[in-house]
Amino acid sequence: MSDIKRLTEQLVKGDRRALSRAITLVESSHPKDRKHALDLLDAIMPHTENSTRIGISGSPGVGKSTFIEAYGQHLIEAGQRIAALTIDPSSKLTGGSILGDKTRMPVLSNHPDAFIRPTPSGSLLGGVARRSREVIALCEAAGFDTILIETVGVGQSETEVANMTDCYLLLLQPGSGDTLQGIKRGIMELADIIVVNKADGKLLAAARESATHYLRALTYLASKLPDWKRPVILCSSTENIGMEEVSAQVSAYLNLAKDKGVFAQKRKDQRLSWLEDETIAELVGRFKTDNEIQTQYKKITQQIEQGQSPARVAARFVDKLIRR
Amino acid sequence: MSDIKRLTEQLVKGDRRALSRAITLVESSHPKDRKHALDLLDAIMPHTENSTRIGISGSPGVGKSTFIEAYGQHLIEAGQRIAALTIDPSSKLTGGSILGDKTRMPVLSNHPDAFIRPTPSGSLLGGVARRSREVIALCEAAGFDTILIETVGVGQSETEVANMTDCYLLLLQPGSGDTLQGIKRGIMELADIIVVNKADGKLLAAARESATHYLRALTYLASKLPDWKRPVILCSSTENIGMEEVSAQVSAYLNLAKDKGVFAQKRKDQRLSWLEDETIAELVGRFKTDNEIQTQYKKITQQIEQGQSPARVAARFVDKLIRR
Repeated sequence: MSDIKRLTEQLVKGDRRALSRAITLVESSHPKDRKHALDLLDAIMPHTENSTRIGISGSPGVGKSTFIEAYGQHLIEAGQRIAALTIDPSSKLTGGSILGDKTRMPVLSNHPDAFIRPTPSGSLLGGVARRSREVIALCEAAGFDTILIETVGVGQSETEVANMTDCYLLLLQPGSGDTLQGIKRGIMELADIIVVNKADGKLLAAARESATHYLRALTYLASKLPDWKRPVILCSSTENIGMEEVSAQVSAYLNLAKDKGVFAQKRKDQRLSWLEDETIAELVGRFKTDNEIQTQYKKITQQIEQGQSPARVAARFVDKLIRR
Repeated sequence: MSDIKRLTEQLVKGDRRALSRAITLVESSHPKDRKHALDLLDAIMPHTENSTRIGISGSPGVGKSTFIEAYGQHLIEAGQRIAALTIDPSSKLTGGSILGDKTRMPVLSNHPDAFIRPTPSGSLLGGVARRSREVIALCEAAGFDTILIETVGVGQSETEVANMTDCYLLLLQPGSGDTLQGIKRGIMELADIIVVNKADGKLLAAARESATHYLRALTYLASKLPDWKRPVILCSSTENIGMEEVSAQVSAYLNLAKDKGVFAQKRKDQRLSWLEDETIAELVGRFKTDNEIQTQYKKITQQIEQGQSPARVAARFVDKLIRR
C-alpha cells in the first residue's frame, strides 16, 4: 500500500497525527511533495464539503482567540468535533499574538475533539495562505463538523476568508458609539453575524451602547442574504455568555441560506474561485520556480538593456510561454 | 507615416495633447490598442530615464495635493517642467479627494510647464495602476524633468511606488508626539525624506514637536542609503514654506545616491522588476482574457464537479498551458 493511500485511510478515520502530517504535506512547496499532495487531495475529495465553515474576523485585540476557545467548547459540548485554523502567532504581518495556541486556547488545544492549526501568512497571492482551502478540505475529510477560520481585519484577507466560508462572524469591541473602530465599511458588509465581545463587567454598558450603534449602522448596509436580518450579539468569551445565541443564529442563518439555495450556490462558486485562484497561483508559481523557464527568462532580461521596452519583452516572452 | 510614428514624434517634441493620447493608449486594455502601445513604448525608450522620479506618500488628509501644487510651482520657477501622476479623485478605494485636480491644484493644472494626470487605481496586480511605469516613461519622453507620483498609505501601493521612484517623500501631519498616526513602520522605512506638512499658524508648535518625535523614531529604523541621514522638514504648502529645503534635500539625496552607485543600481533593479511584474500581469491577463484559453478553461471546471480536486485540475491545466 502506498504511503499516500495509508495516509488517506488514517486521515478519514479521524487520526489527528495523520491530519497534521497531511497539512504539512499540502503546505510544502517542494515539487515532489506537491505531487503527493495532489494525490492525497484527489483521494479525500469524496469525504469533503460536509462541515460548516465559519469565518471569525476582527481587529487585533478584539479577543478572537478567547472567543474561539469559548465558542469551540460550546460546540464540542453540543457533540461536535471542531477544527480551528488560527493566525500564525509568529507572523508579524497579520498581527498575531506572540503567545502560542497552547497558551491562548488552553482547553481546545488539549481537547480530543478539537484540532488547532496555525496557518502561515506567506502566500504567492494575497494575505491568506494559498493552501487554506486545501487545509479545510483535509479537516473535513478527518471528520470535523465545524471549521473555524480566524482572520484579522487587514483588507484582502477578509474577502478571501469570506470567499471560503459559509457564515462570517465579525467580532467588535465595546467602544464609543461614534466610531466603527477603524473597521472598514467593506468588512462590515461581509459580516453575516456581528458579535460584540467583552460584554461583561465594566464594559457591559458600553457593549450595549455599541450594539445599538452597530445595529443602526447595519440598516445602511445591504445584506448579502435576502431576508436575513443580521443580528448583533453580546458575548463574553471569558464569562461564557452568548455562545448559545451565536450557535442559534449560525444555525438560523445556515437554514435560511439553504432554503434560499444560497448555500449550495455559494459552495459551487467557491469551488470555482478555488480553481481560478489555484490556476493563477500555479501559473505564477511555475514562472517563478521552474528552472527551465527561469533560464529562458534570464536571457531576455538583456533585451531591456538593449533598449526594448519591458512591456514588449514581457509580452513576447509570454507569447512563447503560453501554448494556445 | 504611421499613426504611432506621428504620435511618437509629437510626444518627444513635448506636445501635451500627444502625451494625453499616448497615456490613454497604454492604459487601454483593448488587444489592438495594446499592440500599438507596445510599438509606441519601444519607439520612446531611447528618450526615457532622464527625469527625477519622486514618490509623494501620506495618509488621506495630510495635504498631498496642496504639497504637490506648492512644490511643483517651486520646481517650475527653478526652470523645470514637471509631471504629476495623481490618485484618481473618483476612486473610493484609494481615498482620493472628491474634488477634481483643477480644483485641488488650480495653478499646476493650468500651467504650460506642468502636466497632471490622475492614475486609475484598477489593476490586475496590486493597488497601483499596472501601467504607471509606462506612463512615467511617456512623461519622460515628453521631456518632463521631474515626475511626482502620488500614493496613499494603504499597504502594497507604497512599496510599488517606492519601487518605481528615485526618492521617496513621506508627508506627515503635526500631531501628538506619542503616536505615529497609524503610519506603519514599513512605510516609515521606505521614506528617504520626511515632510511635516501644515507647519503653520496654530499647528506650528505641534509640527515642531512632531518633527522631533519623528527624528527620534528614525534613529530606530535603518536607512536604505548608507550615510544618508533622513531629514525631517517642516513645510507649509499653503504658506509656501519649506519648498526650498525639500528641493535641496532631494538634490543632496540624489547626489549621494549617484556617488554611491545606488541610483544606477536602483534604476537597473527597477527595470528588472518592471519586466517581472509585467510578465506576471501578462500571464494572468492572458489566462483571464484570451478567448481560446477561457474556452478550454470552462471545460475543465466540470472536472471539479466530477470529484477531482481543484488543485489537481489547476495543475494539469497549467501543465498543458505552459510551453517549456
